[in-house]
Amino acid sequence: MRIDIISVIPDFFASPLEKGLLGIARRKGLAEIHVHNLHDYGLGRYQQVDDAPFGGGAGMVIRPEPVFACIEKLQAERAYDEVIFMTPDGERFEQKRANRLSTVENLIVLCGHYKAMDERIRQTLVTLELSVGDVVLSGGEIPALMVMDAVVRLIPGVLGDGESALTDSFQGELLDCSWYTRPAEFRGMKVPDVLLSGHHEKIERWRQENARERTLRRRPELLRRESEEE
Amino acid sequence: MRIDIISVIPDFFASPLEKGLLGIARRKGLAEIHVHNLHDYGLGRYQQVDDAPFGGGAGMVIRPEPVFACIEKLQAERAYDEVIFMTPDGERFEQKRANRLSTVENLIVLCGHYKAMDERIRQTLVTLELSVGDVVLSGGEIPALMVMDAVVRLIPGVLGDGESALTDSFQGELLDCSWYTRPAEFRGMKVPDVLLSGHHEKIERWRQENARERTLRRRPELLRRESEEE
Repeated sequence: MRIDIISVIPDFFASPLEKGLLGIARRKGLAEIHVHNLHDYGLGRYQQVDDAPFGGGAGMVIRPEPVFACIEKLQAERAYDEVIFMTPDGERFEQKRANRLSTVENLIVLCGHYKAMDERIRQTLVTLELSVGDVVLSGGEIPALMVMDAVVRLIPGVLGDGESALTDSFQGELLDCSWYTRPAEFRGMKVPDVLLSGHHEKIERWRQENARERTLRRRPELLRRESEEE
Repeated sequence: MRIDIISVIPDFFASPLEKGLLGIARRKGLAEIHVHNLHDYGLGRYQQVDDAPFGGGAGMVIRPEPVFACIEKLQAERAYDEVIFMTPDGERFEQKRANRLSTVENLIVLCGHYKAMDERIRQTLVTLELSVGDVVLSGGEIPALMVMDAVVRLIPGVLGDGESALTDSFQGELLDCSWYTRPAEFRGMKVPDVLLSGHHEKIERWRQENARERTLRRRPELLRRESEEE
């Protein structure tokens, strides 16, 4: 998979693309990630990328020309499956979308910054608008990292054998159960006896009950969704 | 505000803490952010922080001892308003929570990694569990960046005067309206006439209608929530 990120602060991505999952995937040759500086496509001597909004108002809006120039240059080199724009009014990014994106070949991820992106960019170039929640961030860079991490970890070979992505939360419809490791007792707090029993069936049943109970308490709508789909 | 991040890949944070909003806030002296390597509190010669789960299963679980050691050392130095754990089964992180967190003094943000965190850590040390959506990520590092960005940008003085956080999406109950900047015409696509009219009242009315129409189309439940709260 190849991912092209477009940002006004490309250096933001330096360490996240080296350390952790994205660095591993790159070193294994399973993900090729390029960061493009929108200012390289800016206008005039100051490589301007933004301007005041028509109609007035605080903050700056990203102009069409630099974004069109950057994306059209990339699209002339290869076909892209999606041009994703990270925006709080986009589709909520969830596991099903991550699963689908993990099978594509080429993605562009456009990070907003400043107040907004000129609407004509969104109507013409962007094919998929994704949101990471009802919260305002300084730009699309962190949401872009989130999408890349969720998608790249699903590419076969990125995770080790011991870390199968299939047992994760949200691959089923339940939250994950409680997990315990050594020591069996820590400051008087003991691991549930059943987990030490060696009785595989009982352990499986305990985990299912624990996950269902946690889901019922924290996210009851997930259980309703599951029963509707059955 | 002071934020202490605990992670098994502390170097992940290098460039995000220098570039963009968090770097600005740090240089202005408005946010002090420290990253702690959980391995510094690991066990034995190999500074072990994780172990196999009791009851079997793939993946590794973070042990209680290193997390207790790190957090208790920090808590001996100052009082913390919250110990936040980033986890997909936590409370959905939204703007109201960001607003509340922006007024506190000291935060710990604990990033999970590997399969899970021993349940005793969550039950004893953690005071607030936050989720950034129904999607599985490789760890809590990107969610931690998201929380920090949303919270720190609300600290008075972090944003410039021209970028008031009060006009953002989700500070009202509507999505933001469409924004346009120069050029007034780009490849035949024109900016709506009203925005060029200079008629402040008409512009304001257009923006409100545009925002309401977009919210109705994309997120109708936000309008219902608003009318319920009235």
